[in-house]
Amino acid sequence: MRSAVLRQGTIVVDEVADPVPAMGQVLVRTLACGICGSDLHFVKHGRRMVELGRELGAAPTLDIDRDVFMGHEFAAEVLEVGPETLGPSPGTVVTSLPVMLSLAGIEPIAYSNQLPGGYSERMLLSAPLLLEVPNGLEARQAALTEPMAVGLHAVAKSGINQREAALVLGCGPVGLAVIAGLRLGGIETIVAADYSPARRALARTLGAHRTVDPAEEPPIEAWREHDGRRSLVIFEAVGVPGMLDAAMRDAPVGGRVLVVGVCMEDDRVRPMLGIQKELTIQFALAYTAEEFAGSLRSIAEGDIDVAPLITGSVDLDGVAGAFADLASPDTHCKIMVEP
Amino acid sequence: MRSAVLRQGTIVVDEVADPVPAMGQVLVRTLACGICGSDLHFVKHGRRMVELGRELGAAPTLDIDRDVFMGHEFAAEVLEVGPETLGPSPGTVVTSLPVMLSLAGIEPIAYSNQLPGGYSERMLLSAPLLLEVPNGLEARQAALTEPMAVGLHAVAKSGINQREAALVLGCGPVGLAVIAGLRLGGIETIVAADYSPARRALARTLGAHRTVDPAEEPPIEAWREHDGRRSLVIFEAVGVPGMLDAAMRDAPVGGRVLVVGVCMEDDRVRPMLGIQKELTIQFALAYTAEEFAGSLRSIAEGDIDVAPLITGSVDLDGVAGAFADLASPDTHCKIMVEP
Repeated sequence: MRSAVLRQGTIVVDEVADPVPAMGQVLVRTLACGICGSDLHFVKHGRRMVELGRELGAAPTLDIDRDVFMGHEFAAEVLEVGPETLGPSPGTVVTSLPVMLSLAGIEPIAYSNQLPGGYSERMLLSAPLLLEVPNGLEARQAALTEPMAVGLHAVAKSGINQREAALVLGCGPVGLAVIAGLRLGGIETIVAADYSPARRALARTLGAHRTVDPAEEPPIEAWREHDGRRSLVIFEAVGVPGMLDAAMRDAPVGGRVLVVGVCMEDDRVRPMLGIQKELTIQFALAYTAEEFAGSLRSIAEGDIDVAPLITGSVDLDGVAGAFADLASPDTHCKIMVEP
Repeated sequence: MRSAVLRQGTIVVDEVADPVPAMGQVLVRTLACGICGSDLHFVKHGRRMVELGRELGAAPTLDIDRDVFMGHEFAAEVLEVGPETLGPSPGTVVTSLPVMLSLAGIEPIAYSNQLPGGYSERMLLSAPLLLEVPNGLEARQAALTEPMAVGLHAVAKSGINQREAALVLGCGPVGLAVIAGLRLGGIETIVAADYSPARRALARTLGAHRTVDPAEEPPIEAWREHDGRRSLVIFEAVGVPGMLDAAMRDAPVGGRVLVVGVCMEDDRVRPMLGIQKELTIQFALAYTAEEFAGSLRSIAEGDIDVAPLITGSVDLDGVAGAFADLASPDTHCKIMVEP
């Protein structure tokens, strides 16, 4: 089958081995897979990520010098259920946590040398993890279950309550997912900041009460002006060096900073900013299985409208170009790969 | 009267104006004042601290180019109560939060151009803030109410509970105060790390269950070996660049890092360490009035034995030398100034 793989820092389309479902696995045909900012980061910083994992004591499962499969925001159609395996009938549209269960443990789907991700014509998924896409929801919308779950998780992790206000820095897909999660959680003051007018418009669509262009007004001032009385939780959803320090500088005394933007580079902070204001910095990653299922449910029931996030679609041959296009935030938010 | 002041980066003893108590104030004779690590930091980084305060929007109350009074860990004897003021009788031994209440607001005692701190023969204190030193407690021990309150506050702020373990990085006065607070809070696993054998011995005296020399064994390994099953809270009580990143590297998944070491310089961190393990970083500063009073009570009732911390005593002429001596952690822990 064909797959768009990461080979020595470049996305290339090539023939790879046809996946065959083993016990507990299901073979699916990829219908849609979102391109995630993490994938763009990984192309640039993959080697460093693998090194960091090793420093943290992770088993070295990924060889960055071999082909790497990516694509972890997917919806797919069941083709074939593995031997002695209970699974949905062929034709069922499903999504899944992007991991594979095996007797050896949990393996990632995507960022893998072995398991094809959603930038491939076909994939293997874990039968027990499959979630059937309900309500005739379009596959490309179901594929956004994963990024929206990241937002729901970040909001839950922050512990924000309805008496508090949120300032979301960055309105890329992660920031927008946070905004959707905040709105779903009944937060009454959501201020969102981004340099891109298109992304600010999306932020309002997803539920921000006020948006601000940091080039024109410091986001913290926009919050003060809009509300300023409630306790504030700042969601850092940009993930580039300098953002954490800026959030710490702007946070009010006793403020909380929830870091959901994935900064893969070294960063400079001034600890005195944290000390003088007794800040709390909470890092958030991924989601629980319950949050993932909740995300699909919220999308299917129309509580989160993800349609406006989808700004483009490509086939496998268009993946490399789409990675390049996503560098321009005013044209694109989420590009779907539809192999 | 005589005072050891910070003048253009150097401690010098000079004659300064005799303080006269106004309404609400009490004139006291300094009996003992501990030299705090923050004072040593301030000599080195004072200008930068003032700049940072300005960036955070603080009113510029301190002029670093004029004489700066320091000394905020004190016990003193009441000499005279200001006009129309209720206060303790002359001869009473007291301590106090190192701030002055006035109609204009709250002013710091120490790090001030106006209000003499504990490195002076006499001071003005705020009558409503005075705490009488009970049980005939020695003044030099009562003077340690302030640094021990910092430890009690850090422990409270961390939210650590008795099912959790603590790893304390750094056994200077702040780390030792944290250890005392943890022991007082009934924490059953306290692992403490310091390069200095003398400080490790003090850590055991204050209540650490296990101490470790980071030159011989990574502190996190000492915790794993000693306990390793409970959730862990790391207390960063060193406050030099690199420590926060190291604590983030060593923290287990879902771990908490309580930062109580005051790092006044820029620092480098790898946010990915926080993200991959969903860490919480909580910064702590100072204490509440209740924690301050609780600290004095715990010392007076013998629940915290501060006597072993006191490793030296100087008069005003010895302050500059004591600042120099404190650079050597194996000789000294807390030097008391007894004017």
